[in-house]
Amino acid sequence: MIYFDNAATSYPKPEALYQEIGSRMKRYGANPGRSGHEFGLRTNRAIYETREALNQTFSGDNPLHFVFTANATESINLVILGLLKDGDHVIATETEHNSVLRPLELAKSRGISVSLVSVDEQGRVNPGKIEAEICAQTKLVVCTHASNVTGAIQPIEEIAAITEAHGVFFLVDAAQSAGILPINLSKAKIDFLAITGHKSLYGPQGIGALYVREPMSLPVIKTGGTGSRSSDLNQPDVMPDRFESGTLNTPGVLGLQMGLDFVRLQGREKLFAQEYALTQVLMKELNRIPGIKIYGPPIGEPRVPVVSFNLGDLDSAEVSYILDDEFGIITRGGLHCAPLIHRRLGTSQQGAVRVSLGAFSTKQEIEAFLEAIRAIQKMM
Amino acid sequence: MIYFDNAATSYPKPEALYQEIGSRMKRYGANPGRSGHEFGLRTNRAIYETREALNQTFSGDNPLHFVFTANATESINLVILGLLKDGDHVIATETEHNSVLRPLELAKSRGISVSLVSVDEQGRVNPGKIEAEICAQTKLVVCTHASNVTGAIQPIEEIAAITEAHGVFFLVDAAQSAGILPINLSKAKIDFLAITGHKSLYGPQGIGALYVREPMSLPVIKTGGTGSRSSDLNQPDVMPDRFESGTLNTPGVLGLQMGLDFVRLQGREKLFAQEYALTQVLMKELNRIPGIKIYGPPIGEPRVPVVSFNLGDLDSAEVSYILDDEFGIITRGGLHCAPLIHRRLGTSQQGAVRVSLGAFSTKQEIEAFLEAIRAIQKMM
Repeated sequence: MIYFDNAATSYPKPEALYQEIGSRMKRYGANPGRSGHEFGLRTNRAIYETREALNQTFSGDNPLHFVFTANATESINLVILGLLKDGDHVIATETEHNSVLRPLELAKSRGISVSLVSVDEQGRVNPGKIEAEICAQTKLVVCTHASNVTGAIQPIEEIAAITEAHGVFFLVDAAQSAGILPINLSKAKIDFLAITGHKSLYGPQGIGALYVREPMSLPVIKTGGTGSRSSDLNQPDVMPDRFESGTLNTPGVLGLQMGLDFVRLQGREKLFAQEYALTQVLMKELNRIPGIKIYGPPIGEPRVPVVSFNLGDLDSAEVSYILDDEFGIITRGGLHCAPLIHRRLGTSQQGAVRVSLGAFSTKQEIEAFLEAIRAIQKMM
Repeated sequence: MIYFDNAATSYPKPEALYQEIGSRMKRYGANPGRSGHEFGLRTNRAIYETREALNQTFSGDNPLHFVFTANATESINLVILGLLKDGDHVIATETEHNSVLRPLELAKSRGISVSLVSVDEQGRVNPGKIEAEICAQTKLVVCTHASNVTGAIQPIEEIAAITEAHGVFFLVDAAQSAGILPINLSKAKIDFLAITGHKSLYGPQGIGALYVREPMSLPVIKTGGTGSRSSDLNQPDVMPDRFESGTLNTPGVLGLQMGLDFVRLQGREKLFAQEYALTQVLMKELNRIPGIKIYGPPIGEPRVPVVSFNLGDLDSAEVSYILDDEFGIITRGGLHCAPLIHRRLGTSQQGAVRVSLGAFSTKQEIEAFLEAIRAIQKMM
């Protein structure tokens, strides 16, 4: 099997994760933060170390400002639906994933107005267009860091400078970028960073995080037991408890810690360089095949290792199916949960075949994939 | 180490969970529901099987009416904060956990009125008191099935008959009961059942479920990508996607499946009988120790295997600490995230030492525990 669906979830994970997760679950088996016993405190420490690793990875100001969530989607919901009230205005872009677009649609029904900024033909956001939409009611700008369809990388530092200048909150969806692109919270005033653990951070599915720069700026929309201030019926203000209710996903946190270790030991820059180089080979060779149309930034331009394309008028889901069924190559066809960028690309009907690489992708796999595409092209 | 903190999280889990979770994560490593490839479909099937196992365990009407959440707390939040609107009235009890009390407190700030029904000295709810509070504005009754402090079991079938007769929704918090007490959704009209996976269902921490009898009756408060109806900016109505946004916690679901298998193979009734018998021995012997006060239902009465007590005026956290530090016995002292029942018991200051048993608890452990308590009593 050749696995080219890393933008959905990275696979495989580092072998250590599969080997050790069970024994770590046993070693750190208590309910952290719910008990004073040594077994619970040991688990607490492992969880705090993971917050520290996140804080280090993203140059944050405080490990406790990283709260654990189930996924980037939950992180985004907590911000959009927690922060925005009737009468507020929010700006996002048409390259957002449904993880942003659907909460925004729900927000609309609560009296919040939404502006979606268009992107260029390569899927890139122009920060000036965001600035032009800011008005007195604007409370939040939301932008994905890297598109799961085009692979385009958005200039989040420039956007952060704009939102900071205008006193507007900035939420970055880092689902496709955390672990592979540089994100420096000490340099860019990103107020909220939505992170998933199971893509380029190589942790398990089911764990994500939200960085919150100013905890008290974000009203709480999910409450419950925290193990702290037990006698208070109000959610405690203390971090991370303010945003973490109910028993934590300790196995997920332990797995994420192993993923963060993997990225740190391999080196984020090295991983990016390696995957980018393979992406460039893939694009160059694909371009030689008659009838291929590649979306997103052209060869030589920055992108995450995601390449979406179509082969003539062939249905993308059909191509993806043939790749799986006849060649054992896993890609994704159809629409990619980001409907507006498909409209911009003109692929709302055809969708696109998406190849997304990971740390374990190889040149040989790229070659086998190209062979398969050539064979399918000949069948046409 | 003797582990008597199973009400916080069961420990150990079945050995198979620790042994196999890593290899299952590898085998079912794709992102389910996000792809048409065989690798993804295999993962889909494993997840559906887990819904079927839940449906079977609780005699539900449809496996797809069980949606996965992070924990019982999330399940409860989805119901309380999704269902109730300005002007609505909700009834709960003073034996609820903060997982219920805190969302209710948040609901109050949104114009929802809350009635909390008192319990008797053993921590038991009188269904008649709930019925007496029902008025025209009442939309929901919330009741915990079993208390995490007193161990008292509430008559949820009787309450369900009352709420059904009055056309009011009923939410049961089954955090302390799912897997150990009978819950039959075909017999009792429970509209929403909040389940956690990591207590008496012996799955990992981080996975829970919510049963929703009539999916369209519950407005959605969390949205995002579902892998379905990608081009629609609204959350799909189809179950379980309506309530499952973002990448699912597949490792958690796989682990829960193993936990459900364990309970099925052992037999829920057998597990209850075994733990109940140990609880009775524990209570009888504790009662012989001078200065001991046990809370909750008396010997011979139904309860889950949770026993809270105090030793004279000793601070419960101190007793729990000594048990851990000097005897290697893990219990929990202090308040147990259920402040109102502590008020009722008169233990808001002292808290209580809680012993909670699990499937792996033994008579020898109970004896060692009693020895330790006798020794502490003599030190007094």
